[in-house]
Amino acid sequence: MGKLEIDNFWAVIPAGGAGTRLWPLSRQTAPKFLRDLTGSGRSMLQETHDRLQPLVRDRFLVVTGAAHREAVLEQLPVLAAAPGDPASEKVLAEPSPRDSMAAIGYAAAVLERRAPEAVMGSFAADHVIHKAKKFTEAVHSAVEVAREGWLVTLGVEPTFPSSAYGYIHEAGPLEGHPGVGLVDEFVEKPSVETAEEYLAAGGYRWNAGMFVVRPSVLLDLLGTWDADFAATLRAIAAEPGRMGELWPTLPKIALDHAVAEPAAAAGKVATVPALFDWSDVGDFDSLATLLDAALTVDSEGPTVLGDKALVRAIDSTGLVVPHGDRTIAVVGVDDIVVVDTPDAVLVTTRAHAQQVKQLVAGLKSHGPELT
Amino acid sequence: MGKLEIDNFWAVIPAGGAGTRLWPLSRQTAPKFLRDLTGSGRSMLQETHDRLQPLVRDRFLVVTGAAHREAVLEQLPVLAAAPGDPASEKVLAEPSPRDSMAAIGYAAAVLERRAPEAVMGSFAADHVIHKAKKFTEAVHSAVEVAREGWLVTLGVEPTFPSSAYGYIHEAGPLEGHPGVGLVDEFVEKPSVETAEEYLAAGGYRWNAGMFVVRPSVLLDLLGTWDADFAATLRAIAAEPGRMGELWPTLPKIALDHAVAEPAAAAGKVATVPALFDWSDVGDFDSLATLLDAALTVDSEGPTVLGDKALVRAIDSTGLVVPHGDRTIAVVGVDDIVVVDTPDAVLVTTRAHAQQVKQLVAGLKSHGPELT
Repeated sequence: MGKLEIDNFWAVIPAGGAGTRLWPLSRQTAPKFLRDLTGSGRSMLQETHDRLQPLVRDRFLVVTGAAHREAVLEQLPVLAAAPGDPASEKVLAEPSPRDSMAAIGYAAAVLERRAPEAVMGSFAADHVIHKAKKFTEAVHSAVEVAREGWLVTLGVEPTFPSSAYGYIHEAGPLEGHPGVGLVDEFVEKPSVETAEEYLAAGGYRWNAGMFVVRPSVLLDLLGTWDADFAATLRAIAAEPGRMGELWPTLPKIALDHAVAEPAAAAGKVATVPALFDWSDVGDFDSLATLLDAALTVDSEGPTVLGDKALVRAIDSTGLVVPHGDRTIAVVGVDDIVVVDTPDAVLVTTRAHAQQVKQLVAGLKSHGPELT
Repeated sequence: MGKLEIDNFWAVIPAGGAGTRLWPLSRQTAPKFLRDLTGSGRSMLQETHDRLQPLVRDRFLVVTGAAHREAVLEQLPVLAAAPGDPASEKVLAEPSPRDSMAAIGYAAAVLERRAPEAVMGSFAADHVIHKAKKFTEAVHSAVEVAREGWLVTLGVEPTFPSSAYGYIHEAGPLEGHPGVGLVDEFVEKPSVETAEEYLAAGGYRWNAGMFVVRPSVLLDLLGTWDADFAATLRAIAAEPGRMGELWPTLPKIALDHAVAEPAAAAGKVATVPALFDWSDVGDFDSLATLLDAALTVDSEGPTVLGDKALVRAIDSTGLVVPHGDRTIAVVGVDDIVVVDTPDAVLVTTRAHAQQVKQLVAGLKSHGPELT
């Protein structure tokens, strides 16, 4: 492999999503992507930036909620506008959340004007990737294919039959690009049984939501199925002053549904195999798996995310997160999840980690302070 | 039954014991007996006082560690000395903990001088009793027998084969006192299997450590087996100025071993059946049992000791104690115990509640601040 930087390649980072299933660590005011969930010392957003920086140098666009713009700039001051050129700011603020098609499409429309030759890669701000070299290789390969006009998705090799991720199905090889496949289908999160069938059948990969594409290609694909949507995104990019008026009219839809699925059916989507370790850190169970995998030494007791000196354990396993500056003692509990914060404590098990979402919904209806 | 008050009857309340298995609720600085563990609004010490007050009016002696004297007087200001008569104070302070024989024997020696006609009843400050009328009846009956020179113990009718309590064995009826029995043996905490045999055999009651006896009888019994011990206690009562010199020489031994067991073998112990509900609230499992029994309505989810508004539960059972002013969320955990305090959180299960003692021992060796 030659140089790391890829000419005209831009990283688009949608930084949204409350990460409800990671409550009380993740809050509306301090969502998952602003937190250091791996104990690395950098937030997930910062880690996403750091991973992409060698590929794009300073060609970033972060799309986030207006409420988080300041926090994003604080964590990544390199994204601030150049002096005297406010339009050069690399944080795009959404007035309200309208799902991933609006967020990524808006970045595409801005890029289409700022850098007509650009290829963009969209990478969520709250995913964890290990084996960065494999990631870099996959992105290089995806950009090559995307320059030819394909919508390219990175397809993560599944390591177990997950029911928490959607899948991509590869129909066969893409001519002229060894190792790259043609996608004929995106499938929603399956049952574990169905996921087992996918793994046995082969040709299925996890949909990590990482798309590499030329901005015009993305917007034109969108325009095929929703001409108004694409036109409105381009109108906002052309006249940012109309944001307040136009943004609320955009459909709330995921990019997968709005573009990726119909484009796959139309034979316009390619996939590059992704051989890096990837996790969307969706809940405390996947966070525990991730942290355990990163441990180089087997240790007894629960995995601790934070200051180990605050945790006392007897005959226990699981995940303990001491973020409340208090001692946490666990006695005789297996696969437990204990998350301590200054105003809320969560106790659950790894097997019930998904239900935290339900809990937060209940908290919201009673009073939103804690969420 | 006639009047409640019993002539010349004094209540002795040993208020000691760290209640380690109730950490982090119970601490060295704020032990179990100073806490409201039942949500009644009164500490266990105050409840013990309130229960006995109709029987003794103002004839109390509380024996506690010097460190807790102030706190005891704060909770029970009626125990303070009469103006101008410091010797009338009803809180006796132990310079150091020397187990129950020293504590209760010291109270006996003081009483022997203050009120030669007294019968004393010793009732721990950290036990919970429901059905107070039955308790009152049992004490009345015990005092009658004690006036004749017996060491009388209240024998709690076992409701299950507990391995957490010691047992009393009744050899037969005590002549002239219908319903009262003669005790031939005190047995230490048995295994559950042995406890089951006890219950099947009959004649076994829980030893709740409640003794009713004339002070001189108790000290003379003690003197039979350890003349120095009894003499030293009497010397301290005669010359309180010698406390500092003499107290540290006292044996560290439980009253059960020092007096009750040999006296039973010698045929000098009687037992009055106790038909009230009793719990020593030794750990969070027995606390949960106690609180559940007190509930008049079946409710879903864990039992909450404290502000219910702070607890959010989904598919969970057990005991949650929100004493940290923080929201506690439990999701998908059965028979869980969660105790939140401002500086420490405990997560265990009812089945592992006994192991908390082991945890606290570990905490102490690392630094005593939290214990």
